[in-house]
Amino acid sequence: MTASAPSIKRTSTKYLPPEDSRDRISAFMQSLQDEICQGLETFDKVGQFQEDAWQRPEGGGGRSRVMSEGRIFEQGGVNFSEVWGKTLPPSILKHRPEAAGHSFYATGTSMVLHPKSPYIPTVHLNYRYFEAGPVWWFGGGADLTPYYPFAEDAQHFHKTFKAACDRHHPEYYNVFKPWCDEYFYLKHRQETRGIGGIFFDYQDGQGKLYRGPHPEKSASQYSRSLDELEPRSWEDLFAFVQDCGRSFLDAYVPIAERRQAIEYGERERDFQLYRRGRYVEFNLVYDRGTIFGLQTNGRTESILMSLPPLVRWEYSYYPEAGTPEAQLYETFLKPQDWIHWPGSAV
Amino acid sequence: MTASAPSIKRTSTKYLPPEDSRDRISAFMQSLQDEICQGLETFDKVGQFQEDAWQRPEGGGGRSRVMSEGRIFEQGGVNFSEVWGKTLPPSILKHRPEAAGHSFYATGTSMVLHPKSPYIPTVHLNYRYFEAGPVWWFGGGADLTPYYPFAEDAQHFHKTFKAACDRHHPEYYNVFKPWCDEYFYLKHRQETRGIGGIFFDYQDGQGKLYRGPHPEKSASQYSRSLDELEPRSWEDLFAFVQDCGRSFLDAYVPIAERRQAIEYGERERDFQLYRRGRYVEFNLVYDRGTIFGLQTNGRTESILMSLPPLVRWEYSYYPEAGTPEAQLYETFLKPQDWIHWPGSAV
Repeated sequence: MTASAPSIKRTSTKYLPPEDSRDRISAFMQSLQDEICQGLETFDKVGQFQEDAWQRPEGGGGRSRVMSEGRIFEQGGVNFSEVWGKTLPPSILKHRPEAAGHSFYATGTSMVLHPKSPYIPTVHLNYRYFEAGPVWWFGGGADLTPYYPFAEDAQHFHKTFKAACDRHHPEYYNVFKPWCDEYFYLKHRQETRGIGGIFFDYQDGQGKLYRGPHPEKSASQYSRSLDELEPRSWEDLFAFVQDCGRSFLDAYVPIAERRQAIEYGERERDFQLYRRGRYVEFNLVYDRGTIFGLQTNGRTESILMSLPPLVRWEYSYYPEAGTPEAQLYETFLKPQDWIHWPGSAV
Repeated sequence: MTASAPSIKRTSTKYLPPEDSRDRISAFMQSLQDEICQGLETFDKVGQFQEDAWQRPEGGGGRSRVMSEGRIFEQGGVNFSEVWGKTLPPSILKHRPEAAGHSFYATGTSMVLHPKSPYIPTVHLNYRYFEAGPVWWFGGGADLTPYYPFAEDAQHFHKTFKAACDRHHPEYYNVFKPWCDEYFYLKHRQETRGIGGIFFDYQDGQGKLYRGPHPEKSASQYSRSLDELEPRSWEDLFAFVQDCGRSFLDAYVPIAERRQAIEYGERERDFQLYRRGRYVEFNLVYDRGTIFGLQTNGRTESILMSLPPLVRWEYSYYPEAGTPEAQLYETFLKPQDWIHWPGSAV
C-alpha cells in the first residue's frame, strides 16, 4: 500500500530514516500482524481470523482481522493500518510542532484479545511509526489486564518485556514501565487498567530519552539521569520495536496456557463481565487513539474492535474482603514492581 | 441541603431570580425525583428504588436511587444532586463568561431507565439549574431510545413534550426538538441516539431565545425569527421546566404499558444488547455531563448509573434489509418530524 504514498525529502545522516524506511516499517507491521494471528490461531485451535481489507479515501488503508467464538478467545482483533495525508491533527502537532505544514505517513499494528475464561487475562498491544517532514518517531507497548490475581503471570509478562528492553538499552524498561502504569490509569476509578507492561511514545533517537508527560515519575522511582544519553539511530529504535513486537507471543501465550484448564462458574464469569466494563470506560474516556480515531472519521468498526463482546455494569459493586476479587483491587490494580516481587505467589 | 450554601447578592428586578430561588428549585428537583420514582414503582409493581445519600466535600451532595431487576426495568437510576463551590469549571465559563470569579450553585435531577423487554424503549431525562453571580440559567430535556420501530410511540413521546412546550411558548418545541436531535448524535456512527425529544441549555430569560450551538438548524427548519422575543422572567422559565419534568410519566409510561406484553426471543434480546452499546458509546464519548463529572471528581457510581446492566458489541454488524432492525436504522435513527408523521404506523 506504500506505492502511492508521497515521498518526503531528507538529508542522509546517521540519525535520519533510511530511504526505504516506509517500506521496511510497513513490511514489519504486516509481518507482525501475520505472526501474531498465526500464533493465536495455532494456540486457539478452533477460532480463525477473518480479514476485512479497507481503503481510506484521504490516503492509505488497512486490514482488520477478527476472531470470534474461538476455544480460548471469545473475541480478538488484530489490525494493521497505514495512512498518509496532508497534515497531522492538532493533538499530535502539539507534541511535534516541527511537523506542522508537512505531509505525514503513519503505520501501526494493534491488537486486543478478550478470552472466554475469567482466568485468562485480556491483553493489548500497539506499535506505531510516524514520519512528517523533518521528524519521525516510534511509539507503542503492551499491557495485561487480568481478572484474577496471579503474581506469577504478572512477573512473566513484565520479565519478558524487560528482557526485550534490556537487549536495546539498560534504561528502557525503567522508563517505559512506569509510563505504562500512568497511561493505562482510570482516574475516575483510581485504578490502573491492569498490571501494565511497557508504553512509550515520541521516541525519535534524540540524545535525551523522551520520558512522557511526567518524567519525574520514572526519574525519581526507576532511573538514572537520562538527559545526556547518546543519540539512538533510526535503526536502533526500529530494532527495539521489532524485538518488543516479536516478544508478545512469548509474553502472553504461556500465561493463557497455564490458566486455560481452570474451571470457573457464574461468580467468576460475572466478575469478568463486570471488570470488562472498565476496559470500555478506559478506551472510550481516556484512550487517545480511540477518541482521536472516532472524532476524525477513522474506520469505526476497526477502532471499536477493542471493545469486549459482552459487558456488565453494576451500581456500587465492591468485592468482599478476603476474596480473590478483593486481592485484584488491592494489589493488581495498583502499580507494582513485578520484576522484584517477593515470590511467585502473592 | 441548601442550608449552608453561600448566598449571592442580587438586585431585585423582574428578570432576576427571587430571593428564595434555590430553596424553590431544590424542593422542585427533589419532588420531581420522588414523583418519578413513585410512578415507576407503581408501574413496575416488583422493583423498588434503593437510595444512597451522599455528601460532596467541596459543598453539597445528593441522593441516588437505583432500581434493579424489576418486572419492567432491568435497571433504572434517578439522581438528585445539589452542589455549590467557588468557581464554575472552564467548560461552562466558556458559555457564560459573566460567571467568572463568582461562586456558583447548581442543582438537578437526572434519570436513565433500561427496561428488560427490547420492545420497551430506554429513556433519559435531565433538568438542571445554575446560579453564579449575575447569571442564572435552566437546562434539560428528555429523549427516547427505542430498539424496535413503533412510530406511534415516537409520536406520543413528542406530542406530550410539545404540549408542555406549547403551554409556555409557541416556539419552544420548534427550537428544542432539533437541538435534541443534534445533541444526541453519534458522529462516528452517523446515527441519532434514538428518536429524540427535547433538549435545551442556557435558558436565562433574555429576549433572544438561546438556540444552541447551531441556531441555523432550528431557524431554517422550524422557526420564525427568535431574536426579538419578549424577555422571559425567572418564574416563566421555572414554570416551563416544572411542566416538562412533570410531563415525563405521561410521555413514557403509556408506551411501556402497551409494549410490555409483546413476547420476544433471543434475536430481539441480542439486538437490544447490541444497541445498548450505542448508549455506552454516546455517554462516554460525547455526553458533556458524564465526561465533565468523571474528569472533575464527581461521584463515579452516580454518574455511571446511566450505563446499561448488560451490553454486547459485535464487529461489523449490520441489520438485514427488510427487517424491523433495519427499519430502526433507516427511519428511527435519523431526525424525523414525528408530530406531522403521516399515520400511526410507519
